[in-house]
Amino acid sequence: MQTPLIDDLISALRVLPGVGAKSAQRMAYYLLERDRKGALRLSGALQEAMDKVGHCEQCRTFSETDFCPICASSKRNQNEICVVESPSDIAVIEQSGIFRGTYFVLMGKLSPIDGIGPDEIGLPLLELRLQQQDCSELIIATNPSVEGEATAHYLQQMAKNYQIKVSRLAQGIPLGGELEYLDSGTLTQAFISRREV
Amino acid sequence: MQTPLIDDLISALRVLPGVGAKSAQRMAYYLLERDRKGALRLSGALQEAMDKVGHCEQCRTFSETDFCPICASSKRNQNEICVVESPSDIAVIEQSGIFRGTYFVLMGKLSPIDGIGPDEIGLPLLELRLQQQDCSELIIATNPSVEGEATAHYLQQMAKNYQIKVSRLAQGIPLGGELEYLDSGTLTQAFISRREV
Ligand SMILES: [Zn+2]
Ligand SMILES: [Zn+2]
Repeated sequence: MQTPLIDDLISALRVLPGVGAKSAQRMAYYLLERDRKGALRLSGALQEAMDKVGHCEQCRTFSETDFCPICASSKRNQNEICVVESPSDIAVIEQSGIFRGTYFVLMGKLSPIDGIGPDEIGLPLLELRLQQQDCSELIIATNPSVEGEATAHYLQQMAKNYQIKVSRLAQGIPLGGELEYLDSGTLTQAFISRREV
Repeated sequence: MQTPLIDDLISALRVLPGVGAKSAQRMAYYLLERDRKGALRLSGALQEAMDKVGHCEQCRTFSETDFCPICASSKRNQNEICVVESPSDIAVIEQSGIFRGTYFVLMGKLSPIDGIGPDEIGLPLLELRLQQQDCSELIIATNPSVEGEATAHYLQQMAKNYQIKVSRLAQGIPLGGELEYLDSGTLTQAFISRREV
């Protein structure tokens, strides 16, 4: 026996990933009771972002300008391209500070069974870039899933046609990871990629 | 190196209770990537609710009309008043279907140390109702915390002045609760309130 507007709000909050009926209700009440200003700010931010954020014309990541800050930066090495599946992968890599090149975001991965082929993940745009630009290295950072591997393989073949150096992120034991809790696939990779010290 | 609008959205999402930096980013990307329509719907629902939802003039729960659906209903016993701390308590009780009376929502509880006295939790409004209306029973359903108990005690005294029957929800072992995991306060209450069978 909620009022219609509160029902609407609770049901709208459930579009958020990980938010079920209970948390949506808790959020709605919290905002109504304690943070109406914050709720209005969120309303505005959602509207603005959905209206104005599109994709970078070079790397396909989210951007409200034609080119994202990374693609537009003169401080980044435009000849190194790191291929990732999603914009959140960029966020993780940027946090590490290890990479000073640019990105290409697939916004997905090859999955023929779901009708997702090279066109759907923007590969013609990437290929054009490999043709037109003097790329020194293509770093493949897709996830180590079946589709991620298939995508990596496809990218590798593509780069070969343009004699571009291709590399992949190393797989192995994560920092602080305990052998005991590793899956055997990771352990196998760690063995295969072992280095003499 | 996010764009300003995405940064705004991520930071705005953090007004939601239980949403930290990581989930906010995940939510922002998810909405941008997969559910822009849902995000716009959420934006609208937030705006509408914050603009139009106020408080019921009789029971203080959230309502966009002068009186909430429960207070306005001729099917509810207007002479039984159940006092709860927050609108979400109403939702829980309504789900059980056990109660057919009306409510009074404190929107808090007595806490002199935080400057929350009887006025701040709307008790003058409740007292007026007890004076003007032929109440058959005041059911106190505040939480069993220190402040909840103090509030219950205050309400009890108030109702006494008007010779109104007062009751409190029983405390004891929850359905399906295992003794092993009960706190000793609950167990003590269960002993004190034990009934001959
Ligand atoms: Zn870009
Ligand atoms: Zn009401």
